[in-house]
Amino acid sequence: MAVTGFMELALDQAKLALDNLEVPVGCVIVENGKVISSGSNKTNATRNATRHAEMEAIDVLLREWQSIGLDQPLVAEKFAGCDLYVTCEPCIMCASALAILGIREVYFGCANDKFGGCGSVMSLHESSSSDDLTGRQDTRPRGFKCTGGIMAEEAVALFRNFYEQGNPNAPKPHRPFRVDQQ
Amino acid sequence: MAVTGFMELALDQAKLALDNLEVPVGCVIVENGKVISSGSNKTNATRNATRHAEMEAIDVLLREWQSIGLDQPLVAEKFAGCDLYVTCEPCIMCASALAILGIREVYFGCANDKFGGCGSVMSLHESSSSDDLTGRQDTRPRGFKCTGGIMAEEAVALFRNFYEQGNPNAPKPHRPFRVDQQ
Repeated sequence: MAVTGFMELALDQAKLALDNLEVPVGCVIVENGKVISSGSNKTNATRNATRHAEMEAIDVLLREWQSIGLDQPLVAEKFAGCDLYVTCEPCIMCASALAILGIREVYFGCANDKFGGCGSVMSLHESSSSDDLTGRQDTRPRGFKCTGGIMAEEAVALFRNFYEQGNPNAPKPHRPFRVDQQ
Repeated sequence: MAVTGFMELALDQAKLALDNLEVPVGCVIVENGKVISSGSNKTNATRNATRHAEMEAIDVLLREWQSIGLDQPLVAEKFAGCDLYVTCEPCIMCASALAILGIREVYFGCANDKFGGCGSVMSLHESSSSDDLTGRQDTRPRGFKCTGGIMAEEAVALFRNFYEQGNPNAPKPHRPFRVDQQ
């Protein structure tokens, strides 16, 4: 399947989030040309602001690998053969998690100008480790290849859709909006 | 209880990790002078390199708050009154998660020279948001007060202990160590 084919599946996950009144971000994880995990943003449902789409998909996958008895070096080896497709640039937390786990490649849709960890604010995909060639600790983050801007318009359209319908979990503004009385 | 008292409890969690052959990092989360959650590093047991002590403690707490029906604004409000004590400086991922959740204050033991997100490599505790005074989105990271170096020697001693006993999950060196035959 082409890159856009996988991104369409990630967009499907983002639409699922939108249907559930969540900030619409979705992703899929791909190994050997097959989707092996998917996730959508669940910050509202879980009341946990860190449950981004990537963290959801990662946890599903790692729990599965744990359940079939893969040990940590094998998990690391498998993850190093996986690619992630996500509709919006991973934030600093998610990009750092992906670096710790050692994912091979990330494709994202629109940029995340405020908190993006793959080029917009920080560049956590760019390896800063000089130990890569000589062996590394299992918890040592390393870089990953990263390509942005794939089907970005579709991703942005979902955000627009979300914010037009109103985010029910956004905090109330300190100064209430003026309502014209006619 | 004084700051060192809570750090002692975090060190107890780190010792628990050490007993389980995990990288020895531990933490507690404190609200109104009481420990309401604790966590120790579980990267080996879970085969998930992102299960740092802070993520463990955060997830326990948020699941509990979810189970008693707190909605997201209330969770955010409660978290903003919590302090975290952790034996080692939070990494970039964990510091970013704590910023997203909006914790009030972090106290840590030793510095994390390679991946520290609270001063050593990045300073995610320092707010970069200019919107703080005018209201902010629930997912907008903000800064938190951060104090390091508390009982750092004890934290370092645990690491030394761990690495002396050998990390069973460390990757094998590419070039085997030479063993003297006598």
